[in-house]
Amino acid sequence: MNAVEIIAKKRNGQKLCSDEISFFIGAYLKDDIKDYQMSALFMAIYLKGMDFEETGRLTEIMLKSGESIIFPEPNRIYVDKHSTGGVGDKVSLILAPLVASCGVKVPMLSGRGLGHTGGTLDKLESIPGYRTNLSIDEFRRGVEKIGCVISGQTPQIAPADRMMYALRDVTATVESIPLICSSILSKKFAAGPNSLVFDIKCGNGAFMKDIKSAQSLAENLIGVGKAMGKSARALITDMNQPLGYTAGNLLEVAEAIDALRGECSPDLCQVTMEIGVEMLLEAGIEENRDEAKNLLEKKLGDGSAYERFEKMVAFQEGNLSIFEKPSRLPTAGSVIEYKALGDGYLQEFKTASVGRLIVDMGGGRKTIDDIIDPLVGLKFYKKIGDKVSSGEPIVGIHAKDQSQAEMVSQRLTELIQIGPEEFDSPVLIKKRIA
Amino acid sequence: MNAVEIIAKKRNGQKLCSDEISFFIGAYLKDDIKDYQMSALFMAIYLKGMDFEETGRLTEIMLKSGESIIFPEPNRIYVDKHSTGGVGDKVSLILAPLVASCGVKVPMLSGRGLGHTGGTLDKLESIPGYRTNLSIDEFRRGVEKIGCVISGQTPQIAPADRMMYALRDVTATVESIPLICSSILSKKFAAGPNSLVFDIKCGNGAFMKDIKSAQSLAENLIGVGKAMGKSARALITDMNQPLGYTAGNLLEVAEAIDALRGECSPDLCQVTMEIGVEMLLEAGIEENRDEAKNLLEKKLGDGSAYERFEKMVAFQEGNLSIFEKPSRLPTAGSVIEYKALGDGYLQEFKTASVGRLIVDMGGGRKTIDDIIDPLVGLKFYKKIGDKVSSGEPIVGIHAKDQSQAEMVSQRLTELIQIGPEEFDSPVLIKKRIA
Repeated sequence: MNAVEIIAKKRNGQKLCSDEISFFIGAYLKDDIKDYQMSALFMAIYLKGMDFEETGRLTEIMLKSGESIIFPEPNRIYVDKHSTGGVGDKVSLILAPLVASCGVKVPMLSGRGLGHTGGTLDKLESIPGYRTNLSIDEFRRGVEKIGCVISGQTPQIAPADRMMYALRDVTATVESIPLICSSILSKKFAAGPNSLVFDIKCGNGAFMKDIKSAQSLAENLIGVGKAMGKSARALITDMNQPLGYTAGNLLEVAEAIDALRGECSPDLCQVTMEIGVEMLLEAGIEENRDEAKNLLEKKLGDGSAYERFEKMVAFQEGNLSIFEKPSRLPTAGSVIEYKALGDGYLQEFKTASVGRLIVDMGGGRKTIDDIIDPLVGLKFYKKIGDKVSSGEPIVGIHAKDQSQAEMVSQRLTELIQIGPEEFDSPVLIKKRIA
Repeated sequence: MNAVEIIAKKRNGQKLCSDEISFFIGAYLKDDIKDYQMSALFMAIYLKGMDFEETGRLTEIMLKSGESIIFPEPNRIYVDKHSTGGVGDKVSLILAPLVASCGVKVPMLSGRGLGHTGGTLDKLESIPGYRTNLSIDEFRRGVEKIGCVISGQTPQIAPADRMMYALRDVTATVESIPLICSSILSKKFAAGPNSLVFDIKCGNGAFMKDIKSAQSLAENLIGVGKAMGKSARALITDMNQPLGYTAGNLLEVAEAIDALRGECSPDLCQVTMEIGVEMLLEAGIEENRDEAKNLLEKKLGDGSAYERFEKMVAFQEGNLSIFEKPSRLPTAGSVIEYKALGDGYLQEFKTASVGRLIVDMGGGRKTIDDIIDPLVGLKFYKKIGDKVSSGEPIVGIHAKDQSQAEMVSQRLTELIQIGPEEFDSPVLIKKRIA
């Protein structure tokens, strides 16, 4: 087999066979096939596509480039969730312990913020001591002992993906559906789940701006998962405004803890419950949606979910004492309120820009070496459709210092639209795909 | 400007502006843009194309990556010819001195064999002492003094093309019309002509197998040339059998010398004359085809063309003494005849395979380090449409040794088709494009 012939085949729109994909990626990892050949193949894949079978094969080979977790109970269904990322999306923090408390084993491999979106690992690291770098062995033990862990990709997991992603990033081949799918799935399945529920965010704060592209990604992730012999389903959920009441690392953890203790914003609660239902159905814990929902509500209501969260944090060496009382919670250097300039209804968030604003405040990374400030962020007192009066606080700004707070306040005038017409809040669950 | 954005723009099928192309190639030559980014752009160009203006700009930048020749007479039209390559194509050897003897200045920059095709430089190097590595200064002086030279690309000419071609070769991006055009034209125009006549070979011995792809290449070469402010025209000529009576380096030089002395196979003569006419018209030496043809015939008939050839060879330090008498011509180790196995008409040459056979005999290179054996080759006693009788010699085999001669004889049975039906010889000049 020959690298140039394989590139030419994909360039001509033909399907690559399993052996060709194995050969190409294998030789690439040994540096027998060079970056410039891989990037030519990436561009050919970008423009000519790959079907589920090809993408599944690519994913398997990327997965097998490193170690993967094999759980001891072959007949149990281990379920993870994957979100395509948004602003204020702290669903994982609530969901993993909640569904674990219902009896699902949740090996949750999470990531860091990317672009304007937040990252679950960054959020969890605002819990003092919390380790997001569990070894493969610790990860497996945590899932077995606690029922859930949330940790990051180790260097041993899917090293091919890291190399390939870095190359795609500098060759304009990131936004390719088959390459996105293989990148996500090679990492996710390496952590051992045999089932995945996808939360495909859709809207002006998501990577997928419209329902069509969100649906295409969902169908591809499910199709590739199935081609790999795994089970998968997806929800398409709204991301036209920050989810819940906060965005920013520590603020979001505090909000998630409130939710686990029973105080949850309606949108965050609905999205979490709906995904939880799908995970319970995937795991075979319940057979219908109503029963699944009842079980989730019970475990949230009786404190089991929060208790599971505490155990998970303890297993991962985190210390929750600062979250015990509001007065113990550290605050950012300058906290001010952004107030409505006139009467009306909140009509629009420029959500991606809100995410970038938080990155600019220090709540995310612009380069890989940036250190995150966990305290900065925004609290949203109003959401789309809410009535607002002139002078009423709309956003709480938790900034590093006074000058940053003023800059943020200034920028928010362009990122939040208030108008005279009444406005419906967006439909949260746009589509369910199985 | 940013490499990734430029790649993405072409990937999305948009037109690159002049500054973007300059920036990208300039940064690539300084190694600020890497091979893996260039190959991604190549694949995007392969699949999304470039228009004449973009390709012209790319060509100019490749040309300006090195030195180029500026002739001292700004109002004179310097004309070169470019052939896309075939088997037995020794037209350049006759044409350059012939049109020079009519008063055209011919700065002919030639190449080596590629794949199954022969190369003008390889042929000329079978003349003892002939230097194909003239310096830029020698090249210019030769054109001014003799009227023509035929020499190779120096390291100073279009170095960007050499780097880019090597990368295309290993990334399945060779067969892209805009990239082919920029590669050809950046070298050709660096040698100083302001006009080019293209001989686009078409048929089973050419890179362009059908008239449609040949015409597309011709139109692109002319279009890009015009976008660069140059003049260009093209002939599409037949390459369904070897041109003339010979293929192989020394054999072809001997055939070209015979032609310059007045003994020429009809097909070689017609193609040479037709291209010569176009060159005379381009140079403004004659205004109509009949007069141009008369002038060419006169210069061929009165010995001026051959005399010009002798001067060119002498300028390039070649020694023609071995060509003075047939008895002086060195011969290959084993010369045998391939004879017809039955009666009928010669119907088909598998021309590309004939070319590859000559490469296998040592008449061309398989790797860059191979040394060519100038003596090996084939003489064609019969051409398509000719009647043949059982036992009649069809091909003279000039092989390294007896065992090679027998191998060649064996292989020829599959490369030459003789059948019972009468057969027309192919139309030589398929199309004229200006």
